[in-house]
Amino acid sequence: MTPSEIDRMIRLLARLPGLGPRSARRAALHLLQRREALLLPLAESLARAAEKVVVCSLCGNLDDVDPCSLCRDPGRDRSLLCVVEGVADVWALERAGVFRGRYHVLGGTLSALDGRGPDQLRLPALLRRLEEGEVKEVILALSATVDGQTTAHYLADRLSVMPLTVTRLAQGMPVGGALDYLDEGTLLAALQARRPA
Amino acid sequence: MTPSEIDRMIRLLARLPGLGPRSARRAALHLLQRREALLLPLAESLARAAEKVVVCSLCGNLDDVDPCSLCRDPGRDRSLLCVVEGVADVWALERAGVFRGRYHVLGGTLSALDGRGPDQLRLPALLRRLEEGEVKEVILALSATVDGQTTAHYLADRLSVMPLTVTRLAQGMPVGGALDYLDEGTLLAALQARRPA
Repeated sequence: MTPSEIDRMIRLLARLPGLGPRSARRAALHLLQRREALLLPLAESLARAAEKVVVCSLCGNLDDVDPCSLCRDPGRDRSLLCVVEGVADVWALERAGVFRGRYHVLGGTLSALDGRGPDQLRLPALLRRLEEGEVKEVILALSATVDGQTTAHYLADRLSVMPLTVTRLAQGMPVGGALDYLDEGTLLAALQARRPA
Repeated sequence: MTPSEIDRMIRLLARLPGLGPRSARRAALHLLQRREALLLPLAESLARAAEKVVVCSLCGNLDDVDPCSLCRDPGRDRSLLCVVEGVADVWALERAGVFRGRYHVLGGTLSALDGRGPDQLRLPALLRRLEEGEVKEVILALSATVDGQTTAHYLADRLSVMPLTVTRLAQGMPVGGALDYLDEGTLLAALQARRPA
């Protein structure tokens, strides 16, 4: 028996990825014991995020402005467009700081199993952007999963009629990865894509 | 680079126990993609908890009423008082549904290392409750750690002058525990406290 307000809080926290019922209880107690320092600021931050954060109408990224700050940034190369599955991928590439073009978030992959066809993705928006003619290269940065690669194939096919280059991320050994820990698929890909030393 | 509102949310979420920076990012995205179903209800629930939940002035439990619903419950045996370290312990015992007396939350253990003396615990409140004479048995349900057992010893000593029974939880094999996975301390305790079969 936990009191109703606390109980409701625990049930909601338990729906976060990475928290189960037990860790949600711990998190709730942690919050209640840090009311000023954590509970109130978090409540406020969540409310403000719910109000302010919007999906960028150009690229599908999340931001508190629309178009998002990445799409607005005049320092970014507008001839390069990186197509990713989700917002998390945008964040990962931005943390790495290795890409200076712009993004397009598909919002998932095609999936026969889950019945996700092209209409469920932000594909029409992608085609509209490309028709404007500014983009010269589309980089397909999709997951190295069956669904990710199916989607990449589909996109490469759809875009082949357009006057632009379509590339995809290289597959191979992760940097810092030990050879004997790699799966066979990665080893095969790394071997097939071998380059002169 | 993640936008400021989202960034703030991630930094606050990362301070929850069980969430690191990576899982906080996942949690933030999960929330932003479920605005109506999860983000807004959670923001509201946290704000309400911050406003409503109070520490019970009798036992130290957390509830939205004071005295808490456990202290108010007329069905509970007022002659039995279970002394625990924290609110999490009250919740654990209540989930198990094995105790029908009332609780007293110390708010921690004595700790020479962390410089926590009797004054840092809710000890004066405990002594006041016991002086009322209603309680006949005090059950020390403290952790089987060095600090927990030091605290239990200290309390047993302080309470020995009062006209009441002081007991503590039994130590032994956890129910369902396999013998060969038990540590030596538990095996020793279980052996010393052996009973006729």
